[in-house]
Amino acid sequence: MDGNQENHTTRGAYVTQGKEFTRDTQYIEDRVVSDSGLEPGTDQRDQGIWPVEAGRYRLVAARACPWANRTIIVRRLLGLEDAISIGMPGPTHDVRSWTFDLDPEGKDPVLGIERLQEAYFRRFPEYPRGITVPAIVDIPSGEVVTNNFPQITEDFAKQWSAFHRQGAPDLWPEDQEEEMREVMHRVFTEVNNGVYRCGFAGSQEAYEKAYQRLWTALDWLEERLSDRRFLMGDHITEADVRLFTTLARFDVVYFSHFKANRQMLATLPHLWGYARDLFQTPGFGDTIDFQQIKEHYYGVQKDINPTGIVPVGPDVSGWLTDPGRDHLGGSPFDAAAGATAPGPVRPEERVEPGHNPLYPAGS
Amino acid sequence: MDGNQENHTTRGAYVTQGKEFTRDTQYIEDRVVSDSGLEPGTDQRDQGIWPVEAGRYRLVAARACPWANRTIIVRRLLGLEDAISIGMPGPTHDVRSWTFDLDPEGKDPVLGIERLQEAYFRRFPEYPRGITVPAIVDIPSGEVVTNNFPQITEDFAKQWSAFHRQGAPDLWPEDQEEEMREVMHRVFTEVNNGVYRCGFAGSQEAYEKAYQRLWTALDWLEERLSDRRFLMGDHITEADVRLFTTLARFDVVYFSHFKANRQMLATLPHLWGYARDLFQTPGFGDTIDFQQIKEHYYGVQKDINPTGIVPVGPDVSGWLTDPGRDHLGGSPFDAAAGATAPGPVRPEERVEPGHNPLYPAGS
Repeated sequence: MDGNQENHTTRGAYVTQGKEFTRDTQYIEDRVVSDSGLEPGTDQRDQGIWPVEAGRYRLVAARACPWANRTIIVRRLLGLEDAISIGMPGPTHDVRSWTFDLDPEGKDPVLGIERLQEAYFRRFPEYPRGITVPAIVDIPSGEVVTNNFPQITEDFAKQWSAFHRQGAPDLWPEDQEEEMREVMHRVFTEVNNGVYRCGFAGSQEAYEKAYQRLWTALDWLEERLSDRRFLMGDHITEADVRLFTTLARFDVVYFSHFKANRQMLATLPHLWGYARDLFQTPGFGDTIDFQQIKEHYYGVQKDINPTGIVPVGPDVSGWLTDPGRDHLGGSPFDAAAGATAPGPVRPEERVEPGHNPLYPAGS
Repeated sequence: MDGNQENHTTRGAYVTQGKEFTRDTQYIEDRVVSDSGLEPGTDQRDQGIWPVEAGRYRLVAARACPWANRTIIVRRLLGLEDAISIGMPGPTHDVRSWTFDLDPEGKDPVLGIERLQEAYFRRFPEYPRGITVPAIVDIPSGEVVTNNFPQITEDFAKQWSAFHRQGAPDLWPEDQEEEMREVMHRVFTEVNNGVYRCGFAGSQEAYEKAYQRLWTALDWLEERLSDRRFLMGDHITEADVRLFTTLARFDVVYFSHFKANRQMLATLPHLWGYARDLFQTPGFGDTIDFQQIKEHYYGVQKDINPTGIVPVGPDVSGWLTDPGRDHLGGSPFDAAAGATAPGPVRPEERVEPGHNPLYPAGS
């Protein structure tokens, strides 16, 4: 498959003249599981199976990237901080790779590498595809295990349950899973990826089709969220995590930079109420770094923004206003099932003051 | 002066790396006047003076360009349609010139030229500067008389009064002229040109300074318009014309394309009410072609938008909503002084249906 890759990867060109944007959806599909289901004695690595083991893996996730942002949220909602450590590349990268430029001496303190590429090459010396985040890296060998982002969060929920915190929410309620998969599929193709289809369109015609598709889906969501507190009903699920990371980037990047601009999110009453409701829920908004998000898209995608200038706006203080969703009932965490909000963000994982209205500059 | 020129001109590069944007404000400063004030027998042309004469001049003004848009509005407010005909280049142009690509056979039907450049070269064969609109062209000789846009509208008001329609407003009330000039100066440097300073900034630092300057001025205007119906008080003046053409382009172009994006105009209650009040006044909104505006900026300024893709949004239907300014009193046209609104737009000068909410597609 020769589709060009996108923001969470590191290739140089994002727009292909005359073409519709096609996402490369081939990933390293290894999994980390609690029970391999294999006959004893089978070589698990051969089968792409790795064992759940606290402290063994490092999640590499840039705050800027919406696909990586999912994993940061889910790890925190489930309380996996002690079991799976996290490394955070900076918001910009060159064609070779995401880099650990925010870390002391520009190296991830656990993996000891400067570029995420090194972990990919340690696993596959000729790795031919984009170097993407999120990625799970095996700390002992320094090899990438997987970069298959939808599987990573699903496995955090289903395979790592032995390490979940007390009060972790059930992000994949069994009785809703079938509908959830349908909703998440539509959200993925039409919204998460739909904004990229607008921004990376290689022709006016491809762009206009992409714009119509995106707005058809956003109108559907606006309607769906008019009488549901969350996407699947009264409580948060993985489906909300997946929609949220796109909504958090909508007004600051996708509206202008990707020309997804029928209207700003802040003018869609239900979606904007929903997005703020999530933003103000521990585990969601506290993972968002608006400054890194802007620096990433505007700084890296030079074929859309050749000057590399990063906008100062838009004003994001509105994210802290009252979402006005209480009349819908429900609550982010299902208290009846014993779910609670996660505690405060660990100091070393806190978003930089000034990059998020939850953490004012100078705080 | 080697400053780069800007949107209403036709040079290729708009952004100069590392530099602040500096507008070239040197124009052909000839004037068309009713009384030259010269000794009889003096060669008026030598002095850059041309006589007011109905039917002699053609105003060349692209709808897309905010500086040209001023002249279209003022010509209509004053009812100069019979005295001064109008030629309208299309929204896009190449490095050589604005072209009459919307006219039959791609030629202005009166001047018989394909490119505005021809009229500049007929006057100055080696004309070295940008080919800008608006321009006044002497029809008999085919030569450009002037492209000095602030003088053009002032002279329409003060020199062409013999040809004004019955009920033409006084756009330059003598008792307000001093304050008006101060307000217009600030509006010019900080807003009209301020948005270009954001969009054509050649460094992050220059951009951030430009952004702060622009928003300081917009906050001043928001405050000034909180208790004044129009910029100078109860009735429209030239100052309103000059601010309006920038406001009309704000959400559709400057917010995203020029990164003037603290917030959309539609979220500033007084400025947005004021802008809609003018839009709904005959002579203002009926000159606006949102589609041509977008095609111009996004299609021509390829060093900011290399793909040349023109956004479908934002939704402009809000321009027809109630401005809510009646409580401030006043009225666009000072009835006590005999001023009235201009009549309907001439059919041949009407904005294309679908390009402005006043003229829905298919109307």
